[in-house]
Amino acid sequence: MSVVRLDIAYDGTDFHGWARQPRVRTVEGVLTEALGRLLGEEPKLSVAGRTDAGVHAEGQVASFTAPGDIDLERARRALNRMLGPEIAIRRARRAPEGFDARFSASGREYRYDIETSDTPDPFAARFVWHRPGALAVPAMRAAARSLIGEHDFASFCRAADPPASTVRNLRTLSVNVRGTRVGVRAQADAFLHQMVRSLVGTLVRVGEGRLDPAGVAAILAARDRAGAGTIAPAQGLSLLRVRYAK
Amino acid sequence: MSVVRLDIAYDGTDFHGWARQPRVRTVEGVLTEALGRLLGEEPKLSVAGRTDAGVHAEGQVASFTAPGDIDLERARRALNRMLGPEIAIRRARRAPEGFDARFSASGREYRYDIETSDTPDPFAARFVWHRPGALAVPAMRAAARSLIGEHDFASFCRAADPPASTVRNLRTLSVNVRGTRVGVRAQADAFLHQMVRSLVGTLVRVGEGRLDPAGVAAILAARDRAGAGTIAPAQGLSLLRVRYAK
Repeated sequence: MSVVRLDIAYDGTDFHGWARQPRVRTVEGVLTEALGRLLGEEPKLSVAGRTDAGVHAEGQVASFTAPGDIDLERARRALNRMLGPEIAIRRARRAPEGFDARFSASGREYRYDIETSDTPDPFAARFVWHRPGALAVPAMRAAARSLIGEHDFASFCRAADPPASTVRNLRTLSVNVRGTRVGVRAQADAFLHQMVRSLVGTLVRVGEGRLDPAGVAAILAARDRAGAGTIAPAQGLSLLRVRYAK
Repeated sequence: MSVVRLDIAYDGTDFHGWARQPRVRTVEGVLTEALGRLLGEEPKLSVAGRTDAGVHAEGQVASFTAPGDIDLERARRALNRMLGPEIAIRRARRAPEGFDARFSASGREYRYDIETSDTPDPFAARFVWHRPGALAVPAMRAAARSLIGEHDFASFCRAADPPASTVRNLRTLSVNVRGTRVGVRAQADAFLHQMVRSLVGTLVRVGEGRLDPAGVAAILAARDRAGAGTIAPAQGLSLLRVRYAK
């Protein structure tokens, strides 16, 4: 037996997120079933980012234990034929012993795209938040800078299910502009549930002039979800890549 | 009253084509209803390209007659709010008297995209034909050159409904490559029904080595649909732009 690492991209629009659940279509569910048909037994997948319903991935990583003799490139092609165009297995390779897609990961990077034009873009509609009207990007950048670092991000965690610790190390939170498209990049060791969408929702409030950049530091300090802005919709978010120490 | 010109983009995936039909969702149907709510009466639309089910448009043009006093920019924004993200009205402007989106057009340009990688691209899946395996592009280009010019394209017209004349002037038919993506561009005065997809199907047969470039000239000369290759699937096709003399 050996550990297999899969690098996966998907359009999350028509999935109820990554995590397998009864009676709904999820990425993990579809992938586990396809692997089961291929291997004769459904593997137990570990995943770097448990994306929510409607969230996409360009560089998701999953791992599982498989017989040591399977031809991974052949398996990858067979999987791509089975999975259809919404999910793509970009790479399949043997990982070092002890590798676990979730617990070995040292960092995750997400991208969030906002379309600010009055006119929607039909070809990007599944992958951006269409929110017409200009945003004050310098103010958003000032607010973003005040969030970078190791902090208790309880204010930016979905209240329903807080984990034991809500401290995370946010290494990057940048705002970039290309035409009418505003993109937010976020890198951290790990993210809390709905943390990126919660950060983006708050940055957009700043960009709309409804919240001062200084107010964002106060929201962070309050450690209370009620203070943060609305959570930005799922379709603008994509898991870009996962980092591993080695 | 004055003539209004709309420049329209749409993701055709979930539409039964442009032309309005009872009981199915079409671009013309959705747009005509929205205009009806806005103007108080449904206009009769003229359109440059009656795209088929699943075919997209980046630069579709439609025209209709409307009261001379409507605020077109306001109407455009209202339409975009009503139509949702799959259809975008990119411009709305008054056209010269006598303008008709269909009959005034002097040229149409289409693009067809083929993804040749083994690995599908989930983010382009709605807009490309995923056909794994390399294509012999030089042979495709040679075949394309033999099709350019004014010819009777009956061999590349859907047999069910041939128009009075099947002569068209194909001004451009080019094949370009970017990584694993092969794109075909076609410009003509006008196109026959399924002509671009039929040309692409034949070019792909050439690219697969199943048909000689010289055989394509023979297919053209035969003026018989049965000789041409299979029709390439709808999702790779997009109406790029429409040309008007003035």
